[in-house]
Amino acid sequence: MTERKKPLEGLVVLDLTRVLAGPFAGMMLADMGARVIKVENPQGGDDARAYTPFQNGESAYFMSLNRGKESVTLNLKHPEGKRILKELAARADILVENYKPGTMKKLGLDYDVLSRVNPRLIYAASSGFGQTGPYSDRPAYDLIVQGMGGLQSITGTDPKHPLKVGSSMADILAGIFAVTGILAALHHRDLTGRGQMVDVAMLDCLVATLENAVARYETSGVAPGPIGNDHPSICPFATFESADGFINIAAGNDVLWARLCEVLGIPETAADPRFLTNRDRIENWLALKAILNAQTQGKTTAQWMEALMAVQVPCGPINTIDKVVSDPQVLAREMIVPVAHPVAGELKMPGVPIKFSETPASIAGPAPLLGEHVGAIYGGLLGMSEEEIRKLREEGAI
Amino acid sequence: MTERKKPLEGLVVLDLTRVLAGPFAGMMLADMGARVIKVENPQGGDDARAYTPFQNGESAYFMSLNRGKESVTLNLKHPEGKRILKELAARADILVENYKPGTMKKLGLDYDVLSRVNPRLIYAASSGFGQTGPYSDRPAYDLIVQGMGGLQSITGTDPKHPLKVGSSMADILAGIFAVTGILAALHHRDLTGRGQMVDVAMLDCLVATLENAVARYETSGVAPGPIGNDHPSICPFATFESADGFINIAAGNDVLWARLCEVLGIPETAADPRFLTNRDRIENWLALKAILNAQTQGKTTAQWMEALMAVQVPCGPINTIDKVVSDPQVLAREMIVPVAHPVAGELKMPGVPIKFSETPASIAGPAPLLGEHVGAIYGGLLGMSEEEIRKLREEGAI
Repeated sequence: MTERKKPLEGLVVLDLTRVLAGPFAGMMLADMGARVIKVENPQGGDDARAYTPFQNGESAYFMSLNRGKESVTLNLKHPEGKRILKELAARADILVENYKPGTMKKLGLDYDVLSRVNPRLIYAASSGFGQTGPYSDRPAYDLIVQGMGGLQSITGTDPKHPLKVGSSMADILAGIFAVTGILAALHHRDLTGRGQMVDVAMLDCLVATLENAVARYETSGVAPGPIGNDHPSICPFATFESADGFINIAAGNDVLWARLCEVLGIPETAADPRFLTNRDRIENWLALKAILNAQTQGKTTAQWMEALMAVQVPCGPINTIDKVVSDPQVLAREMIVPVAHPVAGELKMPGVPIKFSETPASIAGPAPLLGEHVGAIYGGLLGMSEEEIRKLREEGAI
Repeated sequence: MTERKKPLEGLVVLDLTRVLAGPFAGMMLADMGARVIKVENPQGGDDARAYTPFQNGESAYFMSLNRGKESVTLNLKHPEGKRILKELAARADILVENYKPGTMKKLGLDYDVLSRVNPRLIYAASSGFGQTGPYSDRPAYDLIVQGMGGLQSITGTDPKHPLKVGSSMADILAGIFAVTGILAALHHRDLTGRGQMVDVAMLDCLVATLENAVARYETSGVAPGPIGNDHPSICPFATFESADGFINIAAGNDVLWARLCEVLGIPETAADPRFLTNRDRIENWLALKAILNAQTQGKTTAQWMEALMAVQVPCGPINTIDKVVSDPQVLAREMIVPVAHPVAGELKMPGVPIKFSETPASIAGPAPLLGEHVGAIYGGLLGMSEEEIRKLREEGAI
């Protein structure tokens, strides 16, 4: 009875993206079962194929973001290349690109053109600042957007040392929001038969996720500074030092606060008038932090974890990446998955974080070699002869 | 001709969520046009209604995350409350909850039960660690997940001071991925008529976005340390000091590097054998950083921005939140939007980062007061009389 297909099986995606935000979107669609055709320039393809780190000469960065896709080469500046892109668009459900706004129009391949070829096409564009507005044509990188979007100003502990997040969060958020937009547009198309354009900007996505920083500014008129590891309104809720590293402890109410003091061997601190209520603890946080750190330094993270978990005080270690990828929960959830690649060999990469009960998603296969699926796509999907393909290649069209 | 409805119009969502991850998911669905019914406990409702900061006594935190929703009170422990939830589920397309795994089962209202009431229901559960695995029943907060998921270990500049991101990124990622899963399940339902369960964990979502940190570990066997504001493989690509603050500069290739040196007034540095290639610059980064900072400190961020943008070297300011919310691009993209609330007055909040050409999303209205829509939902949608509603209220069922 139960159908175990993936949720997006049967859909065809043209992935014209490079580097990170766009490829992340195409990757999510592939993981959920769409046939994702990566359209790459014949001169080396996606820039990320040259990005460190490498394994047997293949970029692990590229392989992680492009798993489960097929690859064709296509020269979008060549008249025959433009013709072929339109033929592909005529057969596709979704197109994703992350060129600088205006590039696809210059190529004569923007949404207006392609939607006339295929009115059902959902065309998603991911860019740094969006298709509209005064900064639209500026080049953008994750760092620059984390700065402009305010995230650097609220990360870290010192306004004199603004800090970016350790992953390229602005890029990744744009990739995920693009997929969300594509799927909402897909529902609309399932009902009406009509496609549309979805425009997602890294800066917009970052602003949309600033969370209480915006609420705090809008109600107080004061720009929040870097928040460190503390919580703006719950205390104690922070990172502490242990005998062998660190431990995060989140004692979100007075009951948990009392239990925490008990476990740390300082029950009298819970009764200290400086620390009675959450408000007291916030006001006297520096004094309290010193008292708590003095205790937590006395045992290892694992010892504290065991003692605190026994009385259900929320806590956790600060894992380095080696610990993350071997964590029992991460492995039980299949969030680190080995993928066999014909050249690179086996590479472990993050799994799919959406668990569907009826249509489970999964990594469909390794990343493609550049142009690996020219035969399958140009021959199989578009019905070209080997002679035609050879000729197009000679002309520099593919 | 053009239909300007929102993409999810006509869908009914039951939002049983509290605090952040779940409410963020419900908010995205409401922005995209779904009718989102927030189901809250009669004793004060969503905990976040009590979270700082406040405006006229209303939580700005809550209002930002629950805009455009309707609110009913419902006691899920009361037999009549359980019956009503099933009646609501029979009429809903989507249910979102972020209880600790096992809670809905204890209430007799888990997916197995509700899918028998309504096989078309898409049931999304967001939790810290997911519905399965050894940590499934642990309490989780954003800080704890940022620690366990490795993000704290790669953010900042010093392994002795792990740092979390300044926004609750693990919560927010879970919210966005939950919506992505819901919409993929919706496509499947549009084709087959069958709903399903979508299980999303904050930890999984964080691992899925670690990006090249995982690739670097898997290829080298060495856990990457905190990355600061530097790029692991492109140089110079960093935050620099200016006369009045900071500037991000991303000179991603040799041409941009030469232009940067020209603008900074140190053309000889581009020819310095220590800094000729990207690899040279990475190897001699500390020396180079000092040279560049000595120059950038000489003028203001605005002056450098103008000079660098004139020669198309990617750069950007590090905005504090006051600058973000008044930035011309942010405003042009409607990413900070005033919303009028009957009690709080006008509150500005982040807009919708997905721009649809045919079915534009937008903030549907203010957040609801607790139980504001009891009449509309219990009376209108379920057809109860005023007498019935009064009785249910007296019994403590709603």
